[in-house]
Amino acid sequence: MRPITGEKFESILKFLEEKKIDVLMIADYENSRNVNMQYLSGHPTDATVLINSSGETILMPWDISLAEKYSEVDEIINAANFSYNPFLALKDLYENRWKKSSYTVGIHSITPYGFTVKLKALIPSISYFGNSIEVDNFLQELRATKSDFEIKKLIQAAEIGNNTITDIKDFCLNTPDDTEKDLSFIIRKQMAKYGADDVSFEPLVANSARAHEIHQYPYASDQKFCLPGLALIDFGAKYQGYCSDITVSISFGDLSDDQIKMREVTLKAYEAAIEMIDIGVPLWKVHDTAEQVLKDGGFQMPYSLGHGLGLSVHDSPIISRKPTDEYTKKFWKEETFQDGMVFTIEPGTIKPGLGGQRIENDVAIQNGKVEIITKSELLSF
Amino acid sequence: MRPITGEKFESILKFLEEKKIDVLMIADYENSRNVNMQYLSGHPTDATVLINSSGETILMPWDISLAEKYSEVDEIINAANFSYNPFLALKDLYENRWKKSSYTVGIHSITPYGFTVKLKALIPSISYFGNSIEVDNFLQELRATKSDFEIKKLIQAAEIGNNTITDIKDFCLNTPDDTEKDLSFIIRKQMAKYGADDVSFEPLVANSARAHEIHQYPYASDQKFCLPGLALIDFGAKYQGYCSDITVSISFGDLSDDQIKMREVTLKAYEAAIEMIDIGVPLWKVHDTAEQVLKDGGFQMPYSLGHGLGLSVHDSPIISRKPTDEYTKKFWKEETFQDGMVFTIEPGTIKPGLGGQRIENDVAIQNGKVEIITKSELLSF
Repeated sequence: MRPITGEKFESILKFLEEKKIDVLMIADYENSRNVNMQYLSGHPTDATVLINSSGETILMPWDISLAEKYSEVDEIINAANFSYNPFLALKDLYENRWKKSSYTVGIHSITPYGFTVKLKALIPSISYFGNSIEVDNFLQELRATKSDFEIKKLIQAAEIGNNTITDIKDFCLNTPDDTEKDLSFIIRKQMAKYGADDVSFEPLVANSARAHEIHQYPYASDQKFCLPGLALIDFGAKYQGYCSDITVSISFGDLSDDQIKMREVTLKAYEAAIEMIDIGVPLWKVHDTAEQVLKDGGFQMPYSLGHGLGLSVHDSPIISRKPTDEYTKKFWKEETFQDGMVFTIEPGTIKPGLGGQRIENDVAIQNGKVEIITKSELLSF
Repeated sequence: MRPITGEKFESILKFLEEKKIDVLMIADYENSRNVNMQYLSGHPTDATVLINSSGETILMPWDISLAEKYSEVDEIINAANFSYNPFLALKDLYENRWKKSSYTVGIHSITPYGFTVKLKALIPSISYFGNSIEVDNFLQELRATKSDFEIKKLIQAAEIGNNTITDIKDFCLNTPDDTEKDLSFIIRKQMAKYGADDVSFEPLVANSARAHEIHQYPYASDQKFCLPGLALIDFGAKYQGYCSDITVSISFGDLSDDQIKMREVTLKAYEAAIEMIDIGVPLWKVHDTAEQVLKDGGFQMPYSLGHGLGLSVHDSPIISRKPTDEYTKKFWKEETFQDGMVFTIEPGTIKPGLGGQRIENDVAIQNGKVEIITKSELLSF
């Protein structure tokens, strides 16, 4: 089954008509992942999906048997019939099957520049719709609100994460001498046990010596996790393609006054943000509120307050500050919270010497109700 | 330390001069990974690196503290000074620091189409070097042969994989009722224990009911692994960024005549390929030899014989058949095995009803000597 609803599919055809696009073409390959391919076809990975203006959906997968199992499309094309060269298969489709003298092809802006050059050289009858960012924005907006089918999967991914918080507590209580890596494997293994088909991203496990880094590298080290100070763990589950994302912040032992303040202000920022969420409220206002609480406490928030969750762990919308440069402003428009949105709220701060703290929970708005679907909190041992 | 050698760095400057490129700009971000960024800067992830024609190397990382630890560049630019907007930081660099009236910027063809459009709108003085595929090919060729520094790391990654083969055997002997997922976690955990900082890709663990799929999805399931028939496991370690890649094929119980033949022919194809490898031998000839052995036995090989290993698990060169379409032919040139190359040799075949078999080992050519650095073989239980 493909995630997109019939109603949303109709709006694609309307979009193609309005923009005079003959074919929407979305490619998902190694080094250039694009979950819109799965959203539009149901097929999980490594394929190109084409939707033409009459609604015909064609999938060209790398793995035919996988496509037969998972996809919901009008036709599957087998690249084996074209020397395993997907470009030749596309050439055949455009030139021998559809047979129009010219095509405007809508592509996503993540499409590799080289892919566009090569395809155009091989199929001279195509040209690309000039404003690929309009295509991105359209698909993003389509995916920003979730159907009940999708929210069910997102809640399942959140539950898997919630169960794993208990395992993190057990780790800190029972095996305080074990390493970041040990904890990382426990998180992975327990999430799989609770039904995850994958992690939504590699768990970041950072003891107090590393928690001030914005994105830990390596994700988990051979150092002991339960060191005195402020530590954090950022992790999530993938369930049938859908992602959760949780940050658990933990303090070990006695804290300095600055560290205590860091925790208090993070919690205050989180509460202020959650309080404000409601249908129709501009996203940037909630970001700014949380950031201001941190600033007033003397701390910076070097990232955005939150992001949508869906087939991608960084889905639409982005809950962030207003842009400051003229070019981005031109494309930016004020977005507000909407029914069907599922997203993280994750205020926090980092400071070398103090560590890092962040509270990150997942929030769903369904049938007008705001619900916090994960259960992170500030832990102390 | 950055992986690129001084000698190879000089050849970049020569390339920029020849092609009249003012700045080489390589971006590595989520959904658009580009290991050339790490190769040129030493910085592992999430950054843009710029090398101008006078050899000045500038890094614009998302995480400054990570860059200070790992990168080897002339300057690190902090995007925090530009409202965390990397595009504004680049604008400042081009317009206020370098101050030329125009720039030709060389980009990699994986660069997102949208990135190029946005940057150009913000920095009108830049234009892109038209043939991005030349940039790709140049960097690929640069990375296709490894320095001793790199080969050491690749051998370490191979050793980690070798140790893990023993754990796979133990699993089959001692816990034959456990699942694909159980085995997948053992592989992950043991590789980390042996020193891997990550997997080089998610381990594919396929029992005989799934081994005929070209790329298993999910990577590992809740089904028992040791079912009668032909199964396989494809896995690899990442060690300080460098990747190994091994496929272990296993038979359980009695086999049909067709399955026995599948194994025999796979082994024959592997031996024929290994036999041929030598400096100066064209890559396609080795591919064709192995494929022909399989074809003569009545089996197809629906993928390429092998691929380079390095910072990416699919590095240059690709050991494959000659292209058949005119466009690809135009860019294709015959490549031969060279000193310093490290690559997989992985002939095999899949057939629904029979399962799948593949022998994949990693091979290094160092100081004129061909050495098989991993120890996969056909196992039977």
